[in-house]
Amino acid sequence: MIISTDRRKRPNEFRLDQQPLQEGACPFCEGNESFTPRELLAYRRGTPANGPGWDLRVVPNKFPALQVEGNLDRQGEGIFDRMNGIGAHEVIIETPEHLQTLATLPVVATERVLWAFRERILDLKQDRRFRSILIFKNHGLAAGASLDHPHSILIALPVVPRQVRDEVDGARQHFELKERCVFCDIIRQEQDTRTRVVSENSDFLVVAPYAPRFAFETWLLPKRHGARFEDAGRHEYESLARMIKETMQRMNRALLSPPFNMIIHSAPFQDGLADIYHWHMEIFPKLTKVAGFEWATGFYINPTSPEEAAQVLRDAPI
Amino acid sequence: MIISTDRRKRPNEFRLDQQPLQEGACPFCEGNESFTPRELLAYRRGTPANGPGWDLRVVPNKFPALQVEGNLDRQGEGIFDRMNGIGAHEVIIETPEHLQTLATLPVVATERVLWAFRERILDLKQDRRFRSILIFKNHGLAAGASLDHPHSILIALPVVPRQVRDEVDGARQHFELKERCVFCDIIRQEQDTRTRVVSENSDFLVVAPYAPRFAFETWLLPKRHGARFEDAGRHEYESLARMIKETMQRMNRALLSPPFNMIIHSAPFQDGLADIYHWHMEIFPKLTKVAGFEWATGFYINPTSPEEAAQVLRDAPI
Repeated sequence: MIISTDRRKRPNEFRLDQQPLQEGACPFCEGNESFTPRELLAYRRGTPANGPGWDLRVVPNKFPALQVEGNLDRQGEGIFDRMNGIGAHEVIIETPEHLQTLATLPVVATERVLWAFRERILDLKQDRRFRSILIFKNHGLAAGASLDHPHSILIALPVVPRQVRDEVDGARQHFELKERCVFCDIIRQEQDTRTRVVSENSDFLVVAPYAPRFAFETWLLPKRHGARFEDAGRHEYESLARMIKETMQRMNRALLSPPFNMIIHSAPFQDGLADIYHWHMEIFPKLTKVAGFEWATGFYINPTSPEEAAQVLRDAPI
Repeated sequence: MIISTDRRKRPNEFRLDQQPLQEGACPFCEGNESFTPRELLAYRRGTPANGPGWDLRVVPNKFPALQVEGNLDRQGEGIFDRMNGIGAHEVIIETPEHLQTLATLPVVATERVLWAFRERILDLKQDRRFRSILIFKNHGLAAGASLDHPHSILIALPVVPRQVRDEVDGARQHFELKERCVFCDIIRQEQDTRTRVVSENSDFLVVAPYAPRFAFETWLLPKRHGARFEDAGRHEYESLARMIKETMQRMNRALLSPPFNMIIHSAPFQDGLADIYHWHMEIFPKLTKVAGFEWATGFYINPTSPEEAAQVLRDAPI
C-alpha cells in the first residue's frame, strides 16, 4: 500500500470524487504546456520543448504517488515494515486533441503512443532500483480518470507488485509442468474453439478470457511469444494499434461508450522469464461495481459469460 | 471468478448501474415479505413466518450468484478448470425500518444482527461442502448496494478464497516465527503507540491499520484472541454493536455519510487455525476510485495516512 500525502485531501474534500470531470482549462491541451511539469519526451514537429507544436508528450505526474529522488531506506516500526515511496510516475499525453479517444484516434497516432511507452520503459530500465513498470489507462470518471484528455499512466516501482508476481508464478508453474508458455497454450485453444474469440489479425488474437473477472473483459494477445512489451517488433505495434482501435469501436457500440481500464502486462525486470511469461494487453469496461464480496474474497462475480461477451463484441459493427 | 448468468443483463442494461437506487416498493420493508423468497430465519414477536411483525429476517438472495443445490462437478475444459457455482447466498434484513442505518439503529438491534450472523454460520457450517463463509455489507450505490434498505449479505463457499487464504497464510508465517498471533501483536503495539487508535472499549480496539488500502479504512479488533466470529461471547457481540454504531457515527460526521463496505474476517473451516488467526471486522468508506494502478498491481494508493485518519475519526463528535 502506498501512502501519498501529496495527494492528501481534507476529509470534506473526498466527496469531490463523485463530481464530474473538471471543466475549464485542460493542462494536457496544446498551448497549456506550462500547466504540466517539464516534458520527459515529446514527438514534435521541430518545435522547442515545453511549448505547442507536438503530437505526443510525456511529463512527470504533477501530483506523483511516488518520487524519483532518494533511497528506499527500508526500516522497521515495531512489527511493521516501511520504505520510502521511490518510483517514477509519468503521464503520456496521447494527442493534443482533447476530444479524441482510442476509438477515433488514427491508427498511426495510437502506434505513436505504443512507441512512447517503449521509449520510456527502455529509459527507466536503466535505473537499477526499478523492478517493474506498469502502464495503464483510466478512461472515464467511473474508471478513475481525473482528466478526460486522452492520456495513459506509467509507474516504475522498486518492487514487483503482488498481482504481477502471482501471474508470473502461475505462468512459471505451467511452464515447469509442461515446458510450454501458458499464454501460447491459451492462444492455441482459443483459436481452436473460437467461442471466445472477438477478432484476429496477423499478429494479435482478441479474446474474452476463460475466467473473466469483469463483464466484457477483453485480452489482446500477441501471437508471437515474447515476455516483454518493449521487445515487440515494429509490425506488432502497428497491429496492436489497429486492434486497440477496433476493440474500442466494438465496445463503444455494444456497451454505449463505457468507462474502462486498460493495462499492459509485461514481465518484470528479472532473469529467467523469457520462455515463461507472455506480454499482453487487458481492457475491462467498468460496468458493475466492485463491492464487499470482491473485497472480502478476491473473487469476482461476473454476470456475463465470456462466450456471450465475445459474441456481442464480435457482432458489434466497426 | 464466478459467472452468474442469473444476474445477466443485456449489454445496454449495464449502464443502469450508474442510476440511483430504485424508488417505489422496497422488497425488504415490512408488509412486502411476499417480494422475497421464504425466510430462513426471523426474529419475530410471535407472528407467523413470511408475514409482517418481525425485527430481523434472513432470506435467500432472489438472484443468487451461487446455488445451494447440486454437486461441485469439477471438470477440465482443455487447459481450463471449472466447477458448478455451489454455495449459499443469503440476505440479512437488519430492521423493518427502511431509513435506519448502523449509525442510528439502537445498539440492541445491531446486536441482533450479529446474533443472526452467528445463527446462520452455525447452521451452514453443518454442510460439509462449505469451506468458508463471508459476511459483508455494501452501503450506498458507490459501494455496490443495489437496495438502500439496511441489509447485510452472507455467502458460503465450497472453497477458501484467495484473499482469505493469503491473510491466513500471513498470520501462519508470523505464528511459526514468533509463536504469537499477529493480530494480538498489532493490538499490543497500537495500544502502546496510540497514534492510530480511534477508540477503545473493554472488548474492542478500533484502529486505522498500519498499511491501509483505503483512506479511512478502519478495523474493529476483539481484544480477546479467537479465530472465529461465531465463537465470540455474548458481551463481545454487545461491545461490537456499540463500537459499530460509534464508528459509523464518527465516519458520518467526519466524512459526510460516505458509502462504505463492511466485512467480517473469520477463520475458514479448517483445523489448526485456533491460535493463528484472529477474527475482526473491517470498514472502509468508499472515498476514492479504484483504477488501473490498483487492478494492475494489487497495490493501493491511499492519500491519507492512518495516523491522520485516526485523528480525524477520534476528534469527530459522536
